[in-house]
Amino acid sequence: MRQINTRCLIASLLANITLVSNIALVFCAVAPVHGQQTKNSAKSPFEYVNPFIGTGGEGHCYPGATVPFGMVQPSPDTRLPDFNKKAFPWCAGYQHADDSIIGFSQTHFSGTGHSDLGDVLIMPFATKTRFDAADRPFYGLPARFAKKDGKKEEWAEPGYYAAVLQEANTQQGANVQQGANAQQDSKIKTEITASNRVAFYKCTFPASDSAGLLVDLTASIYAYDGKVIWSSLRVENDSTITGYRQTKGWAADRKIFFALQFSKPFTRYELSNDESVYYKGFGTHGKLLTNYPEQSGKKVKAAFTFPAHAGEVVFVKVALSAVGTDGALNNLASEIPHWDFDKVRSDARKLWEKELSKITVETSDKEKQIFYTALYHSMLAPVTYMDADKRYRGLDGTIHTAENFTNYTIYSLWDTYRAEHPLFTITQPARVPDMIQSLLRHEEQSVHHILPVWSFHANETWCMIGYHAVSVISDAYLKGLLTGESAQKAFAAMKRSATYERYGGLKEYMRLGYVAQDIENEGASKTLEYAYDDWTIAQMAQGLGKTEDYKTFAQRAANYNNVWDKTTGFMRAKKSNGAWNMPFDPIYAQYGGDYTEGNAWQYSWYVPHDIQGLIQLFGSKERFVTKLDSLFILKDTSSKYKNVEDISGLIGQYAHGNEPSQHIAYLYNYAGAPWKTQEKIHQIMSHLFDNTPDGISGNEDCGQMSAWYIFSSLGFYPVCPGSLQYVIGTPRVEKAVIRLDGSKTFTVSTKNLSSENFYIKSATLNGKPFDRSYITHREIMNGGELVFTMSAKPNTAWATAKESAPYSMTK
Amino acid sequence: MRQINTRCLIASLLANITLVSNIALVFCAVAPVHGQQTKNSAKSPFEYVNPFIGTGGEGHCYPGATVPFGMVQPSPDTRLPDFNKKAFPWCAGYQHADDSIIGFSQTHFSGTGHSDLGDVLIMPFATKTRFDAADRPFYGLPARFAKKDGKKEEWAEPGYYAAVLQEANTQQGANVQQGANAQQDSKIKTEITASNRVAFYKCTFPASDSAGLLVDLTASIYAYDGKVIWSSLRVENDSTITGYRQTKGWAADRKIFFALQFSKPFTRYELSNDESVYYKGFGTHGKLLTNYPEQSGKKVKAAFTFPAHAGEVVFVKVALSAVGTDGALNNLASEIPHWDFDKVRSDARKLWEKELSKITVETSDKEKQIFYTALYHSMLAPVTYMDADKRYRGLDGTIHTAENFTNYTIYSLWDTYRAEHPLFTITQPARVPDMIQSLLRHEEQSVHHILPVWSFHANETWCMIGYHAVSVISDAYLKGLLTGESAQKAFAAMKRSATYERYGGLKEYMRLGYVAQDIENEGASKTLEYAYDDWTIAQMAQGLGKTEDYKTFAQRAANYNNVWDKTTGFMRAKKSNGAWNMPFDPIYAQYGGDYTEGNAWQYSWYVPHDIQGLIQLFGSKERFVTKLDSLFILKDTSSKYKNVEDISGLIGQYAHGNEPSQHIAYLYNYAGAPWKTQEKIHQIMSHLFDNTPDGISGNEDCGQMSAWYIFSSLGFYPVCPGSLQYVIGTPRVEKAVIRLDGSKTFTVSTKNLSSENFYIKSATLNGKPFDRSYITHREIMNGGELVFTMSAKPNTAWATAKESAPYSMTK
Repeated sequence: MRQINTRCLIASLLANITLVSNIALVFCAVAPVHGQQTKNSAKSPFEYVNPFIGTGGEGHCYPGATVPFGMVQPSPDTRLPDFNKKAFPWCAGYQHADDSIIGFSQTHFSGTGHSDLGDVLIMPFATKTRFDAADRPFYGLPARFAKKDGKKEEWAEPGYYAAVLQEANTQQGANVQQGANAQQDSKIKTEITASNRVAFYKCTFPASDSAGLLVDLTASIYAYDGKVIWSSLRVENDSTITGYRQTKGWAADRKIFFALQFSKPFTRYELSNDESVYYKGFGTHGKLLTNYPEQSGKKVKAAFTFPAHAGEVVFVKVALSAVGTDGALNNLASEIPHWDFDKVRSDARKLWEKELSKITVETSDKEKQIFYTALYHSMLAPVTYMDADKRYRGLDGTIHTAENFTNYTIYSLWDTYRAEHPLFTITQPARVPDMIQSLLRHEEQSVHHILPVWSFHANETWCMIGYHAVSVISDAYLKGLLTGESAQKAFAAMKRSATYERYGGLKEYMRLGYVAQDIENEGASKTLEYAYDDWTIAQMAQGLGKTEDYKTFAQRAANYNNVWDKTTGFMRAKKSNGAWNMPFDPIYAQYGGDYTEGNAWQYSWYVPHDIQGLIQLFGSKERFVTKLDSLFILKDTSSKYKNVEDISGLIGQYAHGNEPSQHIAYLYNYAGAPWKTQEKIHQIMSHLFDNTPDGISGNEDCGQMSAWYIFSSLGFYPVCPGSLQYVIGTPRVEKAVIRLDGSKTFTVSTKNLSSENFYIKSATLNGKPFDRSYITHREIMNGGELVFTMSAKPNTAWATAKESAPYSMTK
Repeated sequence: MRQINTRCLIASLLANITLVSNIALVFCAVAPVHGQQTKNSAKSPFEYVNPFIGTGGEGHCYPGATVPFGMVQPSPDTRLPDFNKKAFPWCAGYQHADDSIIGFSQTHFSGTGHSDLGDVLIMPFATKTRFDAADRPFYGLPARFAKKDGKKEEWAEPGYYAAVLQEANTQQGANVQQGANAQQDSKIKTEITASNRVAFYKCTFPASDSAGLLVDLTASIYAYDGKVIWSSLRVENDSTITGYRQTKGWAADRKIFFALQFSKPFTRYELSNDESVYYKGFGTHGKLLTNYPEQSGKKVKAAFTFPAHAGEVVFVKVALSAVGTDGALNNLASEIPHWDFDKVRSDARKLWEKELSKITVETSDKEKQIFYTALYHSMLAPVTYMDADKRYRGLDGTIHTAENFTNYTIYSLWDTYRAEHPLFTITQPARVPDMIQSLLRHEEQSVHHILPVWSFHANETWCMIGYHAVSVISDAYLKGLLTGESAQKAFAAMKRSATYERYGGLKEYMRLGYVAQDIENEGASKTLEYAYDDWTIAQMAQGLGKTEDYKTFAQRAANYNNVWDKTTGFMRAKKSNGAWNMPFDPIYAQYGGDYTEGNAWQYSWYVPHDIQGLIQLFGSKERFVTKLDSLFILKDTSSKYKNVEDISGLIGQYAHGNEPSQHIAYLYNYAGAPWKTQEKIHQIMSHLFDNTPDGISGNEDCGQMSAWYIFSSLGFYPVCPGSLQYVIGTPRVEKAVIRLDGSKTFTVSTKNLSSENFYIKSATLNGKPFDRSYITHREIMNGGELVFTMSAKPNTAWATAKESAPYSMTK
């Protein structure tokens, strides 16, 4: 997934990709991560999660505290760069290599390639200088992470984060205790935990006559001057603040309300504002107001101060709402009506333990860290987007009530339809219908009446391409997670989305059978992805007995043929007059070109629903396999990737760091060469994932990269959601137990698995020989055991029969 | 009432005030007003109302269509000047002398001296040039009023407005029918009527292939660059639009939502926006978008076009809501679910006829026009501020539901506590409790927890001085319109408002007994007005049996003594050290000086609750009367009024055009000289009111000026709300019948009344001799008849006894 704005190529990433045949590692060298303390060998999955994985490099994960699918994501922000100034690495507000921290904001995306959020930044302080520093746009309030033995004093576990901060200007401010211990005593420890809608902070202060908390409504991820349309702050009483802000960022018109409560009354506060607001009768007319309880403007900040004795603990709760400050206050009162930080942390842990136990694995500690952290990351999006009273803000800007479902937001669908949503059909069957309801509400509230493309916080961003919500819905329907009237409504919404002429060249796509590049850019990618999406609609139409719709969309599903250039052997963009778009270079990738974050090498495999048809276009299985082999070998000898920093995690032209490649390694199965899939998948898992901050080889993308890893670790992957099949790769864990709803389990076991023995020699399912390169959803959900016997040598005969190959529209 | 901003003195007004002894008229010469057609002598009160009265000069009234206390006020805007460019005359968007029109916006203040609103401006057009013109900030879209016989083709009656517009650029645009009739045929007639929450337009178009309507979300009264914080527009279908805008004007953070519906589908639309909004997948990225159904930004405009044949009528409904577009849509559907313009106009007329019949008068046609128009104007504020489903936006920014009451907004309390709210206790007894509930909700939702000062649309402006909501509430309580728990709650709110230290120098007022000028400006006026407000609190405390509170506030009520300067014989501002503020000039008036929109001559009479005490300060009744006489004679020989354009309608230093003077002419009664009150009141009514556009001698001020005229016409006036008395002036109408709730009436009759016979010779109440210079509220509400026998010569003996004088705290 990418950002919308064009920007320079991150040369450093590509510069590392020179020794392709040696599978160069792109990870930076970083200090070991502080995780929770390891205790004994009987650790729970929870204890293996390392929230710092993906917080370096281009993973774009945040280390902060949140609960599964939680509405708040309080997390440290180490930089909030201007949108125009290389903001890309700070999509989640945080980079693990940074030494200083700006504050803690309450909302973050997990792993996205474009960004926004970073709402309601707070920062504890022990000197008065903190507030002055906040006048620096976007970069205010730096404090250093304290260090011990050369390592940052920073800890994280699911639902908990802590750091010790060392203020930069300790000596200049108020009377912080002097003397030998001054530096030590000016440290502030900040701990965070969270419930669904409330961030809970525990701040341990040094002795100071002017300790306190800064609340900065200007701070923002991907900030730019003008991003904050308006903000407002009210001091309700000596320990409660409410307010909101409205931003125009990636989301064109986003509103977030909050209620903030201190465990200790503040004795004084100051507000700063850019607006020259006239408060007649209050003897003031200007930018800095002391103890005046309300403020509106575009640059509102506030500092709340109180005296603190050494080691004094002050708690702060920050509740969010998209509805109003009343909703935020109610969320606060409903979820955390006390000041027991440990209880909230413990409750968060229980929620995570429950979710993380849904798939348990036996493998090395390192692999467990990678696996359980991936499982953790897979539950950070979508997130809850409704108040405790079930009210939420709709795409139409008005307030709705989510009757009988939980409303979710943050749908990075171009990414997550691939593996994240299919994973949910196994691990989150109760949440899937609600996620689909949320998609359908979006469609209802959309002025276009189409399903989300990339939506969050009641906004459509139109980011990326396709209408992949149809894949999510069709897959869920076919798996029995959507029935009756809801299925009918969903199908109507899917049809509207696929036939909305104004969107993404659909008018020409419907007329010509392809997206004409001279009318709509990225025509090759769009045609290919639409064809797959259409196939998912056809599948659902068939299930619903809608014969005409089935015919229409099955026909559209074959549209990938229209962009196949037999001469060059690549999928290419065509102009409306039928001519190929020129010039053409199969390695060339540019934003707005023929492809979406990719090139011809990467996109020509995108026919997930009809790989046999694709093989026919290639001419033969052999030519198909040869070209696949080439993909993993071909060097990028020139700088032909323009403004597409998402193309990362490269093996040849295979770019694991971005989604268009993620199914490709599984395609050997379709051509009778499963062992080659096993080889590539092993190679990718071994070299493009690690238990370090930069252990994710590209944007984590709201769970998609993690879902890829989870599936691949188990030994199979949903190459074609909607097919009800998972294509066999190679298991990475010795044993995995999937706890299905009810008392059933599905177990994947291995024999002789080792770092060398990654080839499948043979397999059994429930004790019977298993000689297919796919497993069905039903086989998994019925429970049972899949046993792989592994070998250091490929079994070039296993699962190679034509009937052993996974689903393909063309048989 | 004034605007907050400083600006130049309107010299022309004062320049006319040279022949004080001849009572110079300050009206401009204007063309006669088009009112409704006169039919016969048996006309109803409705037919005498001329909404153009007050739309010239400094009346600041609007001529548009509205229902009594209606939420929408659709009205033509002739200029929308920049806030910094002499905006004062266009407070209501309209000046009758203007020849051209910009459009019709849906919200307007009636008669205010500072302004805002002008929301959702629309303008029908018959050429494409209209949209281009809209790019001119604040001054877009001019069309001329068509003229017939030298007069503008423009009509108004309560609930209805119409104008024929002649587009400026007819020949440049689309194919408007050519030939001899081109000019005639390019005229557009626009008619407006309204329900409570919905403005209803009837547009009669010329033949055009590109007729239509412009919707301009940038247009605003008192516009300035940056006033529109954000706006949004959605094209829901081919005939429905929704949207909102948020402004930072006089109100710091105001949100208004709308739903707009056409009777005829538009065939095309274009949107204009300052934001470079990227709508990926829609092939566009820029400022002007065709047929793209949503737009957000700070400068959003849209033009909706359709072909029209000659004389084609297209209706447009615009519903407002402060809650959301869902609220607006529901208001639209609830109130006007049809396209019957005449029915809505007729329904509006019925509502007005009911209200206007509450006081009927027998007098000349001209006087009837003035009187009934004043009665009409008295019902244009406060206005309804809640949706049909009773939801409204509170001062805390969140959405509330008005259970069991109607929520009102637009409280110009410094003006309206004087006569407007007392008038409501007679004519609107059912609405008064709801108005008070609205004030109490404001207090509840206020972060300060104080009652409104000058509030509208869920915003406090802090405009003007005092805490006069307490007067409104106390007066209503003492008249029996507030009881039980509500009275207790109200009293608590009143106390909080009067003791909130941070407001308006109250801390020092409570410590020193006066507002110290060196700490808070306008100290003389504030001390005087607080003292009166405190007296009203004391009266209510007494009624509730709260002895301690009674003592406290009765003591505070005497604080006017603390600003009496015996040496100069004026009320003056004092500094915190007890010294008089210097320099001092009793004629000098400057914004931010010792007085509020006035000078020492005008403010030294402001002790409405204790005129006998004031007389004692003057030394004797005789000195009091002599000084009163001087007030009406003393010329302003120099330009000593600085930036206080509200001081208008002058007779000597008496400024009828602004509120601080409005009770003064009645004060002779307290000093045994009722005949002098009769003389001055007659003089004021005769010369400072007319049935012409500039027939109001100063800002109408949300009904206060009109309420003054209504009371004074009847022969009495509430000098001291809370005293339960109305002080006798001189009747102007031969007969008046007040229809009280139930079947009772109170009649004021006159004998021998003429333009010369304005002195009261004698009077009877219910047949018994009446020799008092006041009448009680109970006497009126009991029903009955007050008969005045008039004479050309003063009866210097009538009602002069001490016990005949009106209430005074000091006996």
